Amino acid sequence: MMIDLLKSHASVRKYTDEPVTDKQLHELIEAAQSAASSHFVQAYSIIDVTDTDKRDQLAELSKNPVQIKGAARALVFCADLKRLDYAAKKHGKTVEAGTTENFMVAVIDTALLAQNFVVAAESKGYGICYIGGVRNNPGPISKLLNLPEHVIPLFGLTFGVPAQTNEVKPRLPVQAILHTNEYEETKYETLLDEYDNVIRDYYASRSTNNKSASWTEGMADYLSEPRRSYMLDFVKGKGFLKK
Amino acid sequence: MMIDLLKSHASVRKYTDEPVTDKQLHELIEAAQSAASSHFVQAYSIIDVTDTDKRDQLAELSKNPVQIKGAARALVFCADLKRLDYAAKKHGKTVEAGTTENFMVAVIDTALLAQNFVVAAESKGYGICYIGGVRNNPGPISKLLNLPEHVIPLFGLTFGVPAQTNEVKPRLPVQAILHTNEYEETKYETLLDEYDNVIRDYYASRSTNNKSASWTEGMADYLSEPRRSYMLDFVKGKGFLKK
Repeated sequence: MMIDLLKSHASVRKYTDEPVTDKQLHELIEAAQSAASSHFVQAYSIIDVTDTDKRDQLAELSKNPVQIKGAARALVFCADLKRLDYAAKKHGKTVEAGTTENFMVAVIDTALLAQNFVVAAESKGYGICYIGGVRNNPGPISKLLNLPEHVIPLFGLTFGVPAQTNEVKPRLPVQAILHTNEYEETKYETLLDEYDNVIRDYYASRSTNNKSASWTEGMADYLSEPRRSYMLDFVKGKGFLKK
Repeated sequence: MMIDLLKSHASVRKYTDEPVTDKQLHELIEAAQSAASSHFVQAYSIIDVTDTDKRDQLAELSKNPVQIKGAARALVFCADLKRLDYAAKKHGKTVEAGTTENFMVAVIDTALLAQNFVVAAESKGYGICYIGGVRNNPGPISKLLNLPEHVIPLFGLTFGVPAQTNEVKPRLPVQAILHTNEYEETKYETLLDEYDNVIRDYYASRSTNNKSASWTEGMADYLSEPRRSYMLDFVKGKGFLKK
């Protein structure tokens, strides 16, 4: 059942050396593109990094040596208003690329595409891993991939035939993310205390990479540090988020 | 096959009056949550708008009278750092909510969740429609749903049993969105000319709502107007995109 497929998702970081053909890749991308797109703008591009030297550089810049080098394919998903620049120019107009709305549209469009790609790939037995580490060096990665103005790398995605599968990590309970009619905060105290126990148990008992940590503690440590503080300058330098 | 299911997606705007039970909704949300989340932050909330008066107001504010009122469920997907504020506070820390990186993380997380929800729902025979119109009045909608600081509505999602299905709209050809190793723009001229013909034919021959328009022309008209110019002030007012 599809729902079971979705619920079985866990990131795959180790792959066999079985290749993925262009035909297989294109089939997955076509399926991915069936996701909705705001006003049909389809504001995205995918860079398929096949060149070994570029893969190595991408791995280093993303601080991700294992997946990017080991996977059959390493893709970089980009928010893209450049193609739309062409579309507008054909009719003597220019895209308002700098608005916050259009930044949000492009980021959302690209994420919907990516998640649909993931579902398609996993349905074919592939394993995947999102690589947020691409945002560790968005400037150098943009240069590496020759991304023009109005195109920014959002995240990587590695995929291939899994060599090792991981246990599913328990998500927040539905009641913690679902609100009825109005946002309701008072429930968080109890629900997050309970979830901390769930996550502590998960980390203590999983087969590899055990640690002692609750969800809230991990979040507190991680999110209290300002990270990737260059991001606003980077996206502005690419023509986004001017206004 | 999952790939066929994905490729058959088209927005559904008219629904039967068959209800969706809370149990059915929760099952879909649980499946949706299996999508990856950056550093496991799960930076999202879903508001299920069941109150008739709020539904009417949401429909009006979104400028979407048909779907929001007619669907079994009208959900609003929100980027949410507020829950993480609670997590951090529990350990005497505060979230760096104002960074561009964390804005992107929350928007991407929410979009991945939503697309996984869509796939789960469609696999069960439901029809869905994303409602970008929620961003027509994000401030009033925030008030309507009592969204606190660090929570913003990104888009709505209506779903229910379809009363009318629509034809699939042809996407850009894979070659127009897929680049190998480096972004390649010179191919756009030919590919977009061809795609304009595909879209012109689609609009001319579809069973309803025929029009005479190419893709590039529609994009040029739509994107050359600055839209939702209030968005930066709105998200900043909610504590996002400060730096």
